[in-house]
Amino acid sequence: MGRVRVAGFSLSLDGFGAGPEQSLENPLGQRGPEMFTWFFGTKTFRAMTGRDGGSDGVDEAFAHRSMDGFGAFILGRNMFGPIRGDWPDDAWKGWWGDNPPYHAPTFILTHHPRAPIVMEGGTTFHFVTEGIEVALERARAAAGSADVKIGGGVATVRQYLQAGLVDEMHVALSPVLLGRGEALFAGLDLSALGYRVTESTPSELATHLVIKRE
Amino acid sequence: MGRVRVAGFSLSLDGFGAGPEQSLENPLGQRGPEMFTWFFGTKTFRAMTGRDGGSDGVDEAFAHRSMDGFGAFILGRNMFGPIRGDWPDDAWKGWWGDNPPYHAPTFILTHHPRAPIVMEGGTTFHFVTEGIEVALERARAAAGSADVKIGGGVATVRQYLQAGLVDEMHVALSPVLLGRGEALFAGLDLSALGYRVTESTPSELATHLVIKRE
Repeated sequence: MGRVRVAGFSLSLDGFGAGPEQSLENPLGQRGPEMFTWFFGTKTFRAMTGRDGGSDGVDEAFAHRSMDGFGAFILGRNMFGPIRGDWPDDAWKGWWGDNPPYHAPTFILTHHPRAPIVMEGGTTFHFVTEGIEVALERARAAAGSADVKIGGGVATVRQYLQAGLVDEMHVALSPVLLGRGEALFAGLDLSALGYRVTESTPSELATHLVIKRE
Repeated sequence: MGRVRVAGFSLSLDGFGAGPEQSLENPLGQRGPEMFTWFFGTKTFRAMTGRDGGSDGVDEAFAHRSMDGFGAFILGRNMFGPIRGDWPDDAWKGWWGDNPPYHAPTFILTHHPRAPIVMEGGTTFHFVTEGIEVALERARAAAGSADVKIGGGVATVRQYLQAGLVDEMHVALSPVLLGRGEALFAGLDLSALGYRVTESTPSELATHLVIKRE
């Protein structure tokens, strides 16, 4: 069975995993993109956005790892889009256009049922209303021996951490102060849950930390 | 006039500046010392504790900076000792023995008056009951053109940050998860207060970040 991983998760110095006031214009919240400077220059990100070139050092190694080896993804509703409450129609198909960067079954946590959406490039969005455990069961079944990625956002990652269901998490600590936003660690006792830092590797743009459950 | 600085302030990945349950045996709280690994090996710390040798790289540069150029110090009551409430007698003179590492006037914030204590090596402890602004005025007057250090603990640093009275802060982010303790940034919007990260320098044991008010 594959592992359950969080990867490429950017964190501000003051502990926020996303800025405040997510919207259609600001999917990462206000000033959220400032935390992703380490990612935007990498080969992996440039390839995801249809471009050549990009950096090839520590940041690229973590960027690659953050998108590689996954057979299924789980996303929170807000990570999928800015719509809240019932789906008004079937028009919204994610932030990513016709060919999303997942290329695998992708399970969206929501309280509001919706039929699956088959996208280009191998991504199918499935909407799961039965909670995080059921979503993980379905994702594991879809992934087979590959890993499952908890893709975010902050609230979703916190729920899986709190339930002890994450095997490994890569955090990219960025040297920015957001001031407001969604706090990743507040009220979560990861030490008591068995998590330890197993790796700390700096680049010029971030400090990459890996935590694992022991 | 000198600057007001926080320096050598260790922070866990999950945002704690001290562990829980500070006591005579654990002045930094439970597991607090794990955040100071970067400091304990340095020349500066070894010299402070009467020993030769020690490291001489990035960590030493920040350790040196964290003790250098100060003409006065401000400490919270808990940083001075584990006693709460009224002073039972004059026996407690800090954690540091007869010759504390300050070598300058050191102002202790407390609600409980006490006569100054002249220690060896140039440190005099003054007890200030009139609040953080008065303590800073007295420290500035004592420091002259040298800097004033807000020496901690977490609650004291937070109060000075919230009041916008800190010019520069050096944080050493350590790759540990404490799980519980005193959160440094919770509820503080440092961005709105005008603080920005101006420097990020990794060592093998910590990431050193400097924030300044603009």
